Amino acid sequence: MNSDPHVSQRFDDELHAVHELVHRMAGVVEEQMRNALTALLQQDESLANEVVGGDNVVNGYELRIEEECINILVRRQPAAGDLRLVMTLIKSIADLERIGDKAVKIASMALSMQRSSASINGRFLRDIKTMGDYALGMLRRAMDALANGDADAALEIAKGDEELNQEYRAALRRLITYMMEDPRTITPAIDALFVAKALERVGDHARNLCEYVIYLVKGVNVRHIPLEEVRQQFQD
Amino acid sequence: MNSDPHVSQRFDDELHAVHELVHRMAGVVEEQMRNALTALLQQDESLANEVVGGDNVVNGYELRIEEECINILVRRQPAAGDLRLVMTLIKSIADLERIGDKAVKIASMALSMQRSSASINGRFLRDIKTMGDYALGMLRRAMDALANGDADAALEIAKGDEELNQEYRAALRRLITYMMEDPRTITPAIDALFVAKALERVGDHARNLCEYVIYLVKGVNVRHIPLEEVRQQFQD
Repeated sequence: MNSDPHVSQRFDDELHAVHELVHRMAGVVEEQMRNALTALLQQDESLANEVVGGDNVVNGYELRIEEECINILVRRQPAAGDLRLVMTLIKSIADLERIGDKAVKIASMALSMQRSSASINGRFLRDIKTMGDYALGMLRRAMDALANGDADAALEIAKGDEELNQEYRAALRRLITYMMEDPRTITPAIDALFVAKALERVGDHARNLCEYVIYLVKGVNVRHIPLEEVRQQFQD
Repeated sequence: MNSDPHVSQRFDDELHAVHELVHRMAGVVEEQMRNALTALLQQDESLANEVVGGDNVVNGYELRIEEECINILVRRQPAAGDLRLVMTLIKSIADLERIGDKAVKIASMALSMQRSSASINGRFLRDIKTMGDYALGMLRRAMDALANGDADAALEIAKGDEELNQEYRAALRRLITYMMEDPRTITPAIDALFVAKALERVGDHARNLCEYVIYLVKGVNVRHIPLEEVRQQFQD
């Protein structure tokens, strides 16, 4: 590494700039998801179309950030700690991009439900709203944990994913009951089921983000380890 | 970079070794998926349990390969071409690990269907078999393209994903008809639907692998670009 203070300042600036871009990308992804849910719940066709069109912006962020991260790796050859940050950012944008895809999927469902003029049970829309709010909260808090380098917060947020999974399973059970009671509702119910599944997956991606934060701060890879064990390790 | 031929030989050996590990991981993932499908189609409970238990092996590969890739980045500071290879391997294992997760999901479905002693329609099992064979074929050919650095093959394989998606949509339509005709079958049909969805996702991951191969060989990032456009670019 070049130890010239000007060079090292430029490096810090570059890292800071790309970190900042990741947070801007997360902001766009969060808004896409919020708009997709609103479009679905309020049957707002033009908002749904906006979300579908907005996916380009998310993809553009992903490509640009990945390119800048690789530039940093090539030109700056960062040492262990900074390398970990760059790797964390590269992994984070892959999850953010996939959350963006889920927003598009939900917006497309909103459009297809409108075309078929099939309506889904109000109770189930409430389930979607509850799950959506929960998943969005996880995403926002995960990004805060990344901004603050807060591994303890990240661990707490990651554990919340289990709650979302329970919510999902309960919603699925209600949906199946509802289809059995009135088989004419099967088609819209299957659409609704995919929306619930997409939200459950958003929780998984937010959990991934949290795991990267723990890796960044603590230097340990906690994927595939039960979170209770991770907490124990923190206390040791 | 150190230009001492011994150091550079060691670097090549390291890269080769990690590349080899990725192919071994892909072999394990492929076998997990094949076993999961067999367990589902032949209602083989012990094979399903074997797949669930085998996920640790897949996860172990992912963690080990990622660690070795990061070691290479830190110690060797590879230049552009080699850096691209290391990044390709890091991305590839994330997709392989997710395909492994889908195998576990399918094996779990096999177990849950057996417990509920609900049987799914024979026609639908054939759909699953067709989709499964197709997805496995994509995975194997994508890994061959990576081994051979063959971007043209990768492009062809990636385009095959659309065929799998069509297969999936047709299966979904048949499944919905089947549920409507006999609402008592809704619960097993929903399980079957998630199996079909998982296989459709395996195709997406195989397509991702192909896109990384194109990035590796051609140096262009083709994600988010329609594949017909990519082919045009190849010809220019």
